[in-house]
Amino acid sequence: MTEPMPQGFRLAGLHCGLKRSERKDIALLVSDAPCVAAGVFTANQVKAAPVLRDQALLTGEGARVRAVLANTGSANACTGEPGLRDAHTSAERMAALLGCAPEEVLTLSTGVIGLPLDMTAMERGIAALVPALRPDGWADAAAAIMTTDTRPKLASARLASGAVIAGIAKGSGMIAPHMATMLALIATDASIPAADLDGYLRAAVEESFNRIVVDGDMSTNDTVLLLANGAAGVTVGDPAEFQAALTGVCVALAQAIVRDGEGATKFVTVEVSGAADEASAHQIARQIAVSPLVKTAFYGADANWGRILAAAGYAGVALDPARLSLWLLDADGQPVLQLVEGGQPTAYDERAAIALMQTAEWGVRLDLGQGAARAHVWTCDLSHDYVSINGHYRT
Amino acid sequence: MTEPMPQGFRLAGLHCGLKRSERKDIALLVSDAPCVAAGVFTANQVKAAPVLRDQALLTGEGARVRAVLANTGSANACTGEPGLRDAHTSAERMAALLGCAPEEVLTLSTGVIGLPLDMTAMERGIAALVPALRPDGWADAAAAIMTTDTRPKLASARLASGAVIAGIAKGSGMIAPHMATMLALIATDASIPAADLDGYLRAAVEESFNRIVVDGDMSTNDTVLLLANGAAGVTVGDPAEFQAALTGVCVALAQAIVRDGEGATKFVTVEVSGAADEASAHQIARQIAVSPLVKTAFYGADANWGRILAAAGYAGVALDPARLSLWLLDADGQPVLQLVEGGQPTAYDERAAIALMQTAEWGVRLDLGQGAARAHVWTCDLSHDYVSINGHYRT
Repeated sequence: MTEPMPQGFRLAGLHCGLKRSERKDIALLVSDAPCVAAGVFTANQVKAAPVLRDQALLTGEGARVRAVLANTGSANACTGEPGLRDAHTSAERMAALLGCAPEEVLTLSTGVIGLPLDMTAMERGIAALVPALRPDGWADAAAAIMTTDTRPKLASARLASGAVIAGIAKGSGMIAPHMATMLALIATDASIPAADLDGYLRAAVEESFNRIVVDGDMSTNDTVLLLANGAAGVTVGDPAEFQAALTGVCVALAQAIVRDGEGATKFVTVEVSGAADEASAHQIARQIAVSPLVKTAFYGADANWGRILAAAGYAGVALDPARLSLWLLDADGQPVLQLVEGGQPTAYDERAAIALMQTAEWGVRLDLGQGAARAHVWTCDLSHDYVSINGHYRT
Repeated sequence: MTEPMPQGFRLAGLHCGLKRSERKDIALLVSDAPCVAAGVFTANQVKAAPVLRDQALLTGEGARVRAVLANTGSANACTGEPGLRDAHTSAERMAALLGCAPEEVLTLSTGVIGLPLDMTAMERGIAALVPALRPDGWADAAAAIMTTDTRPKLASARLASGAVIAGIAKGSGMIAPHMATMLALIATDASIPAADLDGYLRAAVEESFNRIVVDGDMSTNDTVLLLANGAAGVTVGDPAEFQAALTGVCVALAQAIVRDGEGATKFVTVEVSGAADEASAHQIARQIAVSPLVKTAFYGADANWGRILAAAGYAGVALDPARLSLWLLDADGQPVLQLVEGGQPTAYDERAAIALMQTAEWGVRLDLGQGAARAHVWTCDLSHDYVSINGHYRT
């Protein structure tokens, strides 16, 4: 990629046969030096084997990570003891080739639930990855973790100190807010105390991956990993700068996931303002963003504001219908057309509304008229293609 | 209809111009004698004008109802004070022609949210309905309350005493469980103490309309009304018999709504067994039934059981993934194929699974391995047609 890359990391992505097509299906990130690492994982009680293993490895203090191995084709979820064994064996084989301990290798899996890992293909991939490692292998790795994604997702930021944060992500369906529902792997060459890493990552995830909705389904495999190897020889310095840069990378990756949502034709920001508190605003925004009726209206460029008010009405937050106002926003988040005032429709220009909603990026703002708190989520529409993709995923 | 009809009720349904097409769009039910009545209404905080009016009328003790007027074309929701005035004026005009008090006329509306009632068409319809009233007008009335429904929904039951319970319903989208999301109008000629009516209706709704899911969206207009006029000259007698018959009528109407769900190609019973308590079982069944990924897999006849386990895992109920078992059920609810045992796939016959799922009616049973409680919901698949219908509803 032409974006800045953190020092001391090498990556690779290639095809080893986990997918029947010729597409890349296995990826590796290796740090020359041991990294401190933090992870945020799915809140689903049905957790994939790699999630259980990574969680256990990152729970103890002082975990040191050298590599992250990621595969597609199988989620290695609902695979029981054999699945945990396969995750461990994969890490073990990888570690042997890299000359580190198995506990220093994290694993990520994505693909069909319940399908055992094809260990023959995995071993072939593991062996082929090592000679393919390159400092500029980010794009290959990003391509190799794609499933129904149509394009790779990369983002990076350079700090004033010269240190860099870079990340890749995948995710297209099974995307819901409040639980980081995809894979993301972020690395920095800044030197960061292990104790601080988790706080930085959680704050960034809250503002990024927890603000997106594709379909409201929560995955068994969601994982966001942050690795720091210190190779730039600088410390974080200003924590606020580092946090802002990390959050920026996460937001870019999260938005890329929504833009590439399964079947998505539109990127829509759902904003709720005038709420009593931020949690309520977020809850209503999320309810609007998961509503199939709202999402199909977005698809059809139908300014069917009644569906938005109806979704707000069953979000579980107390509201006064007579105080609701609704605007259409342009791609910059500026209100351009007020559809509802005091709970009733304005005499808005229907043709202008349709014209705006036919563009690729816009938003809605629902004001509750209760207070000063606000929140937003990023979402996409529900199209015929979403149904096509998911009605025939495994066949 | 050829089904039994309760005595002392007359109905009509006709076209008055609320819809642009020639389809029937206004309906009336009149009882010769005053009825005791009970209602169950949407839990959405954004409630339509007729819902607010009916709720107020049925709240006091001793409400007496003579007629129910129902219109399509406009939901009369998010219409503010003018909407309440229109609902009241409609009842007033209807009452004047029937020779009763406006408070004895309930109203139901369904259609687009935010669109004011076309009072010119309404008055034309109100005048035309009275001469059209007939004791066997149930089918006309059922046809006149349809929106995206493709067929009218009627059900009835005869009690041992000779009294009859009959009902009509509409509903196709904006259908979610736990809140009776549609219109249903049920009448009986049995004589029932007003104080008992509400209990009978709530118990019946809990087992019927609260067990269905089309899309998880909760409407602003959901209403179930039960009217009893005593015209059969018999009392309820055995309360258990009456409750069972009423519940049976409600179940038939609720199932008819799911079978006619927007774009639905399959009727699927989602059963959860082995739960610690019924509420938990219901919550998991509902989460499975609203999942877009599960519903599209149903559409594609893809036995993608991993999506079902994943949905169960984020339903907010504690569960042990290693104790989950899953079966495909035939149309009679009998298990025919076990897909999952102890959280992992069995060596089931994929072709047999596809063959069953390609039929119009079947089910799934998820056993949690925790206890003896169970619950079910009835749902449908998510198809291309759902997207077509709702992407272009108003145009």
